[in-house]
Order: sequence, then structure tokens, then C-alpha cells
Amino acid sequence: MYDLIIIGSGPAGLSAAVYGRRAGLELLVIEEKPMSGGQVLNTYEVDNYLGLPGIGGFDMGMKFREHADAAGAVFKTASVTEIRDDGEVKTVRTGDGGSYEARTLILATGAEHRRLGVPGEEKFAGRGVSYCATCDGAFFKGKNVAVVGGGDVAVEDAIYLARMCGRVSLIHRRDSLRAARGLQDKLAACGNVEVLWNRTVRDIYGDGLMEGVKLRGTAEQTEEELAVDGLFIAVGMRPNTELFRDIVACDGQGYVIAGEDCATRTAGIFAAGDVRTKQVRQIVTAVADGACAVASAERYLTDKR
Amino acid sequence: MYDLIIIGSGPAGLSAAVYGRRAGLELLVIEEKPMSGGQVLNTYEVDNYLGLPGIGGFDMGMKFREHADAAGAVFKTASVTEIRDDGEVKTVRTGDGGSYEARTLILATGAEHRRLGVPGEEKFAGRGVSYCATCDGAFFKGKNVAVVGGGDVAVEDAIYLARMCGRVSLIHRRDSLRAARGLQDKLAACGNVEVLWNRTVRDIYGDGLMEGVKLRGTAEQTEEELAVDGLFIAVGMRPNTELFRDIVACDGQGYVIAGEDCATRTAGIFAAGDVRTKQVRQIVTAVADGACAVASAERYLTDKR
Repeated sequence: MYDLIIIGSGPAGLSAAVYGRRAGLELLVIEEKPMSGGQVLNTYEVDNYLGLPGIGGFDMGMKFREHADAAGAVFKTASVTEIRDDGEVKTVRTGDGGSYEARTLILATGAEHRRLGVPGEEKFAGRGVSYCATCDGAFFKGKNVAVVGGGDVAVEDAIYLARMCGRVSLIHRRDSLRAARGLQDKLAACGNVEVLWNRTVRDIYGDGLMEGVKLRGTAEQTEEELAVDGLFIAVGMRPNTELFRDIVACDGQGYVIAGEDCATRTAGIFAAGDVRTKQVRQIVTAVADGACAVASAERYLTDKR
Repeated sequence: MYDLIIIGSGPAGLSAAVYGRRAGLELLVIEEKPMSGGQVLNTYEVDNYLGLPGIGGFDMGMKFREHADAAGAVFKTASVTEIRDDGEVKTVRTGDGGSYEARTLILATGAEHRRLGVPGEEKFAGRGVSYCATCDGAFFKGKNVAVVGGGDVAVEDAIYLARMCGRVSLIHRRDSLRAARGLQDKLAACGNVEVLWNRTVRDIYGDGLMEGVKLRGTAEQTEEELAVDGLFIAVGMRPNTELFRDIVACDGQGYVIAGEDCATRTAGIFAAGDVRTKQVRQIVTAVADGACAVASAERYLTDKR
């Protein structure tokens, strides 16, 4: 019986492993893939995690994992297939027939940016294609970029990028935006943003780095090219919470409902990182969650003793 | 007129500087001392900030500052003497006669652990003397340690340390604890904790590393020695908020009232790091606050445009 099982080995899970081990907890980290780091691994460069300027995502994932190893965390690579909550005992079952018991759980399974699913998207990820304007906007200072989407995040991204980029083109498949009225007004006030209505991205092209996108009209099937150095894809996120939607309360979008203390509405189960309801989904806020979730788990364990 | 003035250059202020610069904000960081890093600078070793295992506090402060410099942050060394809030314009005055205006402020002035003020306390800080069990407990695995204090934090620290240390002595100057009843019960259930009532620490001794403390009885003026490898001082914290208590709402202990979004109750003023009301005061939660405070400041600036 473990004190704590951490599900997921992105920044939140690895930070929880470090804090948990330093607190003397017997813990197990279950990760789906044999490589820790989560979304960080697929990031070309990270420049906003204080103390590690301009680090490659892969290197960052390795550094984070090494830290957790040094703290004595034990890892198991397996797919979680079932989580059971029997009050003081939580059971995690894995695809390889494993079954693990713990008194507390930290859910750190993250979230995924929805992809467009078009040619070039994977090839140019981190080489022009980004899913996070806050993270990567500064790499495109003075350059022309495009944003795809029509919701709040897409419009916020376009406004954010307009402050530092040359021209910003917002590509949207419909003839009106879903974003809040107030955001649309602010978008309209940006002198260097144009909205390309009724168009979808059908191809991202370039030679090494991306050079532009091919657009198709949704009404008239017209085709055109747009030369841009960056494409920010803001078509939504999907939290990885399918497995525990009947164990913990989730919001309408599927995020686990939990505040800064990472406590879910289920006793002994905590949620850390992108998977929980929060405003700012960044590496450092996920790492902070790891610390807060362990503090809450410790308090729960102390109360039960 | 700056977009943002950040007051304080600890982990929260420096992270805000990095996020603010990457967001294209014109900003100024005002720091009291010519050395950035805040409390981190006086920490012997930090082992729980993911990605920088076992780093010296001074080195960490330097790395953090270099990152903010690389992001293009401008620093000014001066004591802040007055902060004025005239709605859309905030004015910061400094002891050298300077006056700076900005549309938003991030207060990142930190907090200080109260000290005992006894011989050896400064000399052995980071060499046995610690003000944070969560941060440093793991360095004392299997060793005998003492905790000074009688409130919730002192008792929580003793319970925390009991899990990994040999013997834990809780030194308290009175004959009863102020800590919550529930915590006292848990303390009593720890087999390796003894409470030394009616005693104060009057000297911390050692040769290179600390070796023990000299205690004095508060009633009978008796003297005794207690051989311990570590002394955790938990006699309270003092947030550095004197300057702005009439500008932003503070709680009974003087912390700026602000949640995870770092928004104070005053429009355009944000609080990040140890200075705000929060449960877990750690380097990484301060760094995360820097990101969240900038996100909130940006939203405020966009709303005002």
C-alpha cells in the first residue's frame, strides 16, 4: 500500500514526485509512455520557465525526470485502465494486469491541444506551428503570423500577438466569431489584425521552417496562399480525464474541478497541472501544482493517522 | 508611463519580469537591494525546484536574474517610499527622489521569517538552522532535530519531520501550545517527538555545522544543552506590506488578499509570491504567481484599451 500514486509524468507529476519523496512519502508514478515530460517533450524551445532560459523541450523533460529519479521516485510504465475509490483505499489498475493500492492519488494526466489534422502540422510543430501564444509569441517578434480559431482563446491570442508581431491574420471557418463580444471589440481595435472569414487551413508548407499556409474557402471552394512565419492553432483543448469522470467532479469541458490547493471534491484525490480547472496553463503553474497537491495530500494523510 | 512596474526581485518578481517582457510589456523592476533573488539568496541549497536539483541559493538567484536580463527587463535599485493609486495611473516614489508611473503594478515584496535573534542563528543558517521544514527536512533524514515554536506551523513542522528524522524535539517557551487541537493530537501520536516545555533557545553552537542548542528554562532559569543536527525555527512570518496597506486589502496577518489569479481588490494592482494570501509558500509557487499576475495584468490592460 503506497502513501501516494501519481498518474502522469509531465511537469505536474514529476514535481509532485519530488515534493512527495522529500516529504518521506512512499509513492509510485505511473506513466503511459516510457518517456517523462508530457507536452514539454514535443516543444521545440521553452523560454519562460525561470532559471532555464531557452531550453529545448526534450532536454527539459530529461532534466525534470532526472530530478525525480534523484529524489528516489519509482516509475512504472503502463496504461491506466481503471481507478477505484473505496474511501481510504484507492486502487489503480493497468493494462498489463497490474493493480496498485494507495491512500491518496494525484491525477496529473494533462490535457492535449486539439490539432487541425492537416499536412505539415506535425512536421512544422515547433518550427512555426505553435499551440500556445503566451509560450511562443515572443519568438515571432516583428514577423507575420496567423491564428486559427474563433473562440475566446483564438481572439485573445490574436490580440496578444498583435502587440509584438507584424501582421496577424485570424483564420476562421465561419462568418462570425464565438468569442465574447468584448474581446471582439478589442480585436477590431488592433490596427494590424485582419480576419480571414470562411476559410480553413488545408496545408502548411515550408522548407525547414514553415513559410505559409494554403487556405480553402468554405463557401466557394477558392484556394489561396498566405505567407506567414508562424501559425498559432487555437481550436480547443481536451483534458485527459475520461478514466476518472465518475470518480471526481469535472466541469463542462471535462477538466477536474479543483482550486489552487488541488483538492478535488473526492477525499484523498488531488488534481495537478493542465488537467484541473485553472486560468493559466503553463509549465511553471503545473510544477507549482505538484507542490500544492503534495501539501494537500500530506495534510489528508496526517488527518487520517 | 510604463505598462507595468514590478516591486521586488525575488522569484515572483523575476518570473513576472520574464512573462511581462515576453508579452511585449514595457516594464520596470524596482528592487531594494542591488542583488536579485530575495530569500533564495540566503538559502544554502535548494533541492525542490524542478529541473535545478541541489542548486545553491546564490547560484539560483543569479540564474533567475540572468533569465530576466535576457528577456530584456530593466532594473532600478531603490527603496520604494510611497505608492499612489490614481485609478488608471499608479505612481511609485523611491528614496532617491525618483517617481515612476505605470498602468499596472505587481507587488512582489515577499515575506520574512521571524528570527529568534540569538547567537549562532545567522552563522548556522543553511548549516543546520532552517526556517522551512518542507524545503529542508529531507536534508536531515535519520538525524535528530529540534523545532522552535508553539503555533500551527511549528507543530506541522514537527509532525512532518517526525516522518523522516530520528528524534524531534519541539521547544516551546510556554506550558501549552497555541496550535489547533487536532494538530496537537497528531503530534502526541508521533512516537519520536518530545515537547520541551517552558524553554527558550539562547545559543546555537557548533563547529562548521551546528551541533546543538543551549536552552534556558523560562521559569527556573535552568540551563541545558540539546545535541541536534538541525533547528527549524517556526516563530512566524512577516509579509513586507507596510507600504501599501492603505492601497490594497490585507488580511489580519498583513498578507495582501489575492487568489490564484493574483488580483488584489484594487483594480490594476496584483500581488505575487509570499506576499499574498496562499497556503504553500515555495519558490515554485512564487514563480508560478509571476506568470499568473502578468496574465491578469495583461487582461486588465486589454480591457482598458
